[in-house]
Amino acid sequence: MDINIALLPGDGIGPEIIAEATKVLDRTAAKFGHRIRYTEALVGAAAIDATGNPYPDTTHCICREADAVLFGAIGDPKYDNNPKAKVRPEQGLLRMRKALGLFANLRPVTVYEPLVDRSPLKADVVRGTDFICVRELTSGIYFGRQGRDRHDTRAYDTCTYTIDEIEQVLRVAFRLAGTRRRHLTVVDKANVLETSRMWRETAQRTACEYPDVTVDFMFVDNAAMQIIRRPTDFDVIVTENMFGDILTDEASVISGSLGMLSSASIGAKCALFEPVHGSYPQAAGKDIANPMAAVLSAALLLEHLGLGAEGRAVRKAIDRTLAAGVVTEDLTAPGQRSYRTSAVGDFIAA
Amino acid sequence: MDINIALLPGDGIGPEIIAEATKVLDRTAAKFGHRIRYTEALVGAAAIDATGNPYPDTTHCICREADAVLFGAIGDPKYDNNPKAKVRPEQGLLRMRKALGLFANLRPVTVYEPLVDRSPLKADVVRGTDFICVRELTSGIYFGRQGRDRHDTRAYDTCTYTIDEIEQVLRVAFRLAGTRRRHLTVVDKANVLETSRMWRETAQRTACEYPDVTVDFMFVDNAAMQIIRRPTDFDVIVTENMFGDILTDEASVISGSLGMLSSASIGAKCALFEPVHGSYPQAAGKDIANPMAAVLSAALLLEHLGLGAEGRAVRKAIDRTLAAGVVTEDLTAPGQRSYRTSAVGDFIAA
Ligand SMILES: CC(C)[C@H](C(=O)O)[C@@H](O)C(=O)O
Ligand SMILES: CC(C)[C@H](C(=O)O)[C@@H](O)C(=O)O
Repeated sequence: MDINIALLPGDGIGPEIIAEATKVLDRTAAKFGHRIRYTEALVGAAAIDATGNPYPDTTHCICREADAVLFGAIGDPKYDNNPKAKVRPEQGLLRMRKALGLFANLRPVTVYEPLVDRSPLKADVVRGTDFICVRELTSGIYFGRQGRDRHDTRAYDTCTYTIDEIEQVLRVAFRLAGTRRRHLTVVDKANVLETSRMWRETAQRTACEYPDVTVDFMFVDNAAMQIIRRPTDFDVIVTENMFGDILTDEASVISGSLGMLSSASIGAKCALFEPVHGSYPQAAGKDIANPMAAVLSAALLLEHLGLGAEGRAVRKAIDRTLAAGVVTEDLTAPGQRSYRTSAVGDFIAA
Repeated sequence: MDINIALLPGDGIGPEIIAEATKVLDRTAAKFGHRIRYTEALVGAAAIDATGNPYPDTTHCICREADAVLFGAIGDPKYDNNPKAKVRPEQGLLRMRKALGLFANLRPVTVYEPLVDRSPLKADVVRGTDFICVRELTSGIYFGRQGRDRHDTRAYDTCTYTIDEIEQVLRVAFRLAGTRRRHLTVVDKANVLETSRMWRETAQRTACEYPDVTVDFMFVDNAAMQIIRRPTDFDVIVTENMFGDILTDEASVISGSLGMLSSASIGAKCALFEPVHGSYPQAAGKDIANPMAAVLSAALLLEHLGLGAEGRAVRKAIDRTLAAGVVTEDLTAPGQRSYRTSAVGDFIAA
């Protein structure tokens, strides 16, 4: 098979970890007889520095024409504490999501048995955790009207949702639940927000079409508690953009190893795969970042293209690498030897 | 001293736990020579059932004239899954907050050593946790314009903040940090939201007036991670209404005993004290609910009125009750005897 991947390394540790992911992809392609063509493109602070635009048109065209996008990370501290900065790397990310129509962000939360003790939660609380968060990614308060009044004394943001937007992402979640333990939790704040009430109505209506899936509803504040108290209770969680941003990051703590978490952002025509950890600027260029989340994102990408055996091969290589203790310093136990980013990538690929 | 308390038991377990709190308050007043007068009023589902209004005018007058309000809980499942219900108990809570101007909600998060093993987090992660969340309570998306379009296909909610609203709650947080470890964390989503950028600018400006307080800024998604990963790192956290709702409930998990957490909602003229747990309808009327959070809310109330010794006496009684193992079933270890709500109240009072 000929595979055409748009490669967006982005900022911080992005380039280093993406390099390891392509190393593993190349090895897998060679083994299974595929040909991968990468087209690299700029995004984020890297793109602002080069072109003044965090998501240049050429990047958009490259993504649209690819079979899938492999993304590193964006974000640079020089923009974070400057609330007046006119152009920010994050805008590139948001524009990209919107322009590519990536309306559903999927984040699996599972626990690797060799790493169970790294979690800040007790082993018996986290063991057996296996759920997926589906976050709406192209609407809500991220994309509503925002601004200030004339006197610059009042600011506003608007959260809006249409029934179609809600239904579209709910269907992804219902179908996903149907392939798993058939339990969907819809998270909202229907006791306060009008958009949440529309989410709840739409979910109640859509549920009729998926009678084999059990649906329950949870307020977002309660969900923030239950995800930590009883993570094994969840199968699929679906929620709106802002709640999803918060809850998925909260959930990422469960496994105790942010460096192992990958995500997929799916649209009608495009799909993008990225590690959950950010650009981690403090580690950039030091060859210490954990490449496993990027490699696992590549596995998701292969699986999305229908290459299940190839994806499994990559996951198996990760399991063996973990078992062999060939890990970066974020995953080492006290006294244990740690490996460089590139050494871990070499081991996985081998 | 003559103390005039408005008593709002509310729904679910509210009446039972408030009864124990007044039991302890009466005992404390007798011991220290104070006279407490309670004026009871309706709120929440109880008020809807009686008057059709979840926050009747008479309740408002009673609260306004009191020295402080002691509140139980509101919420009834019969309203939760009916997104079209026109009158909801929660509206009573929100109207009350707005009408009484309770703009700052303070929630202490500390860990009781005898209960440290009840936390879903590891003991060495939670031990020593001692922070306070300050949540803005009368603005933001909770009180912005909301509605639907004519065709009922689009819903919207608006988040707005004025600089004055932000400054007012920030000052509470800065002052509080000044009396503690002088470390304030401002949580926002300034990389996406305009209101958050106004929060960040205002905090940066206000910080100049509190040079002894160290301020840092954290995105809400990152905060949702760090609260669980390193809870001991925080001293005072301040944030807007919706983020505060989510993060305070998340933080309540740390102690492993929601039944021990109290909160204060402070305004320019009024103050209200309530347990953090909700109305817990499944337990209502069974005499099994933990009254300690309500009793600790009463302690906060006494301290707010300047009665520090009285507040300390109540806290000491709680510590002794815990040490004696006189606790409701939510706090018992396997095999340990549990006590009824009223028995725990009796023991604390004694
Ligand atoms: C960088 C930021 C805009 C982004 C978001 O909030 O969506 C990030 O936190 C994420 O979750 O991918
Ligand atoms: C009941 C609900 C409206 C309320 C809120 O969201 O503020 C509750 O969750 C709280 O935190 O007091």
